[in-house]
Amino acid sequence: MVFGSQLIQCVRNVAAVAWEPGKPLVMEEVEVAPPQAMEVRLKILFTSLCHTDVYFWEAKGQTPLFPRIFGHEAGGIVESVGEGVTDLIPGDHVLPVFTGECKECRHCKSEESNMCDLLRINTDRGVMLNDGKSRFSIKGKPIYHFVGTSTFSEYTVVHVGCVAKINPAAPLDKVCILSCGISTGLGATLNVAKPKRGSTVAIFGLGAVGLAAAEGARIAGASRIIGVDLNSKRFDEAKKFGVTEFVNPKDHDKPVQEVIAEMTGGGVDRSVECTGSVNAMISAFECVHDGWGVAVLVGVPNKDDAFKTHPMNLLNEKTLKGTFFGNYKPRSDLPAVVEKYMNKELELEKFITHEVSFSEINKAFEYMLKGDSLRCIIRMDA
Amino acid sequence: MVFGSQLIQCVRNVAAVAWEPGKPLVMEEVEVAPPQAMEVRLKILFTSLCHTDVYFWEAKGQTPLFPRIFGHEAGGIVESVGEGVTDLIPGDHVLPVFTGECKECRHCKSEESNMCDLLRINTDRGVMLNDGKSRFSIKGKPIYHFVGTSTFSEYTVVHVGCVAKINPAAPLDKVCILSCGISTGLGATLNVAKPKRGSTVAIFGLGAVGLAAAEGARIAGASRIIGVDLNSKRFDEAKKFGVTEFVNPKDHDKPVQEVIAEMTGGGVDRSVECTGSVNAMISAFECVHDGWGVAVLVGVPNKDDAFKTHPMNLLNEKTLKGTFFGNYKPRSDLPAVVEKYMNKELELEKFITHEVSFSEINKAFEYMLKGDSLRCIIRMDA
Ligand SMILES: NC(=O)c1ccc[n+]([C@@H]2O[C@H](COP(=O)([O-])OP(=O)(O)OC[C@H]3O[C@@H](n4cnc5c(N)ncnc54)[C@H](O)[C@@H]3O)[C@@H](O)[C@H]2O)c1
Ligand SMILES: NC(=O)c1ccc[n+]([C@@H]2O[C@H](COP(=O)([O-])OP(=O)(O)OC[C@H]3O[C@@H](n4cnc5c(N)ncnc54)[C@H](O)[C@@H]3O)[C@@H](O)[C@H]2O)c1
Ligand SMILES: [Zn+2]
Ligand SMILES: [Zn+2]
Ligand SMILES: [Zn+2]
Ligand SMILES: [Zn+2]
Repeated sequence: MVFGSQLIQCVRNVAAVAWEPGKPLVMEEVEVAPPQAMEVRLKILFTSLCHTDVYFWEAKGQTPLFPRIFGHEAGGIVESVGEGVTDLIPGDHVLPVFTGECKECRHCKSEESNMCDLLRINTDRGVMLNDGKSRFSIKGKPIYHFVGTSTFSEYTVVHVGCVAKINPAAPLDKVCILSCGISTGLGATLNVAKPKRGSTVAIFGLGAVGLAAAEGARIAGASRIIGVDLNSKRFDEAKKFGVTEFVNPKDHDKPVQEVIAEMTGGGVDRSVECTGSVNAMISAFECVHDGWGVAVLVGVPNKDDAFKTHPMNLLNEKTLKGTFFGNYKPRSDLPAVVEKYMNKELELEKFITHEVSFSEINKAFEYMLKGDSLRCIIRMDA
Repeated sequence: MVFGSQLIQCVRNVAAVAWEPGKPLVMEEVEVAPPQAMEVRLKILFTSLCHTDVYFWEAKGQTPLFPRIFGHEAGGIVESVGEGVTDLIPGDHVLPVFTGECKECRHCKSEESNMCDLLRINTDRGVMLNDGKSRFSIKGKPIYHFVGTSTFSEYTVVHVGCVAKINPAAPLDKVCILSCGISTGLGATLNVAKPKRGSTVAIFGLGAVGLAAAEGARIAGASRIIGVDLNSKRFDEAKKFGVTEFVNPKDHDKPVQEVIAEMTGGGVDRSVECTGSVNAMISAFECVHDGWGVAVLVGVPNKDDAFKTHPMNLLNEKTLKGTFFGNYKPRSDLPAVVEKYMNKELELEKFITHEVSFSEINKAFEYMLKGDSLRCIIRMDA
């Protein structure tokens, strides 16, 4: 590790490069440039795969940007810091996050928003803000970044505003999953849907994000948690997360929102959509009870998707919201979520179904594509 | 006036009957049956015209139900009460309301909802709940009710749950407009959009409902109130209501949501849509600031309208809500709104631009269709 900015040099390391949409990643020797102003270079120890990586790697309906280094759920250690970085020093344990917190803009100053003007997620940008260039290269040819994190690399460069410093006692092979999916689902329920004790909650999509949303509903004291997924394999696992009932839309002739309305005497009190399917978003909205129901959208839609509903559903006093990263501000709020795990309020182990070495990273993609995994931890040292 | 249910008989009175969609109302001698269980018969003293009457009278894209007696904004006096009515006695000053409050159902018991299961608005029903029949007839032939109020009649029969008992000192020729439009707009802002002091608020549609929403924004201490209307004639009047800026979408090549985003550095904090146009609903949603913006829909859409937006607008942490009757519970909350007027916190006179005698009721329709009036008071005694 290099202390003191005058000594910071390029590092040569192994990264998993996506050369083309949908093609297996290739382990390559990649140069990682030093961090520039307000950037830090991290040594990634553990990373995991989230559906958002898969979407942009498949690049169906998403802007393709290749070659690219994906990855945005990870835990690591600060290796070196660029000019102007005062909050972090080499050795700090951190979670990189796909959306940042500059602490200066209107959003960062607002209590309601975590959509930082400077550092909010930008899936089309493959370069760093400081100079509009990539920090990754192979024989001088740049490789694009992904959402400012690119954690499928032994070392990566991240803006300081996208790095949460956490308790060094926290095991990074567990809390790494808090840097995206799990916090997103948890926060969607706890910070946005805010179910009251005793309420009924529907969760659409029982992937890791949806199960984290269910975990939030359990923590909030929901009396019924209805899990909705097209993949019935997900139901068994979901029982561990407090999901009490299951609906597979494929098993019914009528729209799932009608099935849920019948199960609940008019609709659920809250719903959280964690699929990315616009049909599920519409169902998740329409299945909440009129008068007080709140639906929260979490899934990342396709470019040309349209959310469509009859406005009468809104006049009937249903509320529709969405969230990025469960409305958590990454630097301000993530350390406390890590503490929730340390205090055993929040269980993370049950989300981790697979583990592979870095060289086997394509297996993590296979598990997710087959719907077999929740989270697959990728160990960088193995 | 008749005291004691044993004496209640039919009354013969004059009502303005809509025989066909879009055709002038005809003053007819109509029989009004006695109130049945949980019903009251009201002597209407003043009524006014709201766009919702006009929509269902035009019946373009709305279920046509004719012949019908329209009217749902009014002030009157209880003339007689049916079996089981204990809350009201003859002589009480009241506002009939198009949506009711049974005080028993989940909605009435919820703090959040005013969508009473039993008595919520039903624009397709033209009969009373108790026996599924009309209380109006001409030579034995039934004439349909409208939203349970049918105030374009000297006497009308209303469910007790749709009647707010108010301060008898309140002038009915003013507070009658609180029984629908003005309370709706006011409540949409104060109860649902809830702008903070100093915020920017856009109001779509500067009819009476929209101007009442603007009045709510003024009361809440908004720093900028942006009025949006296709009819620039509305702008002059709107200045009296604290509207500080105006946008006519027709004056711009780009969508009005983009115009507003430019005027406000990214969008308004709150918007309230009071037009009934689905395009305005979409613009009203898309013009709120990401991170914290809240849009509230009030206008009544057409049957086949679809609200359409890219789900990313929701993931960007904009909230979409709708309201009926400004989330006021008619019996519990309206008396306090009347008191706001009595205490001069709320000004009603500026909403009343026209006044006609009952026999000239078709003029009120003309004023509204031309966009000349805000509220036109129809005096039943003249
Ligand atoms: N808003 C954010 O900040 C944020 C952050 C992380 C992830 N996400 C998004 O959350 C979503 C879930 O992520 P994940 O990692 O849990 O993915 P995942 O693939 O593990 O889980 C998604 C689940 O949804 C189910 N599903 C798909 N279409 C469905 C439908 N129409 N009805 C019911 N179920 C359906 C799938 O069968 C699957 O089980 C993705 O869209 C991801 O991009 C959003
Ligand atoms: N949700 C409820 O409880 C409730 C209660 C009462 C009235 N309403 C509805 O509220 C709406 C307004 O009622 P009102 O009595 O004030 O009607 P109004 O006709 O007096 O006012 C409507 C205004 O909207 C403007 N407008 C129409 N389309 C527009 C567009 N695309 N962009 C901008 N402006 C546009 C018109 O020019 C007009 O000035 C109606 O739809 C009515 O049915 C709803
Ligand atoms: Zn993710
Ligand atoms: Zn910021
Ligand atoms: Zn009305
Ligand atoms: Zn009720």
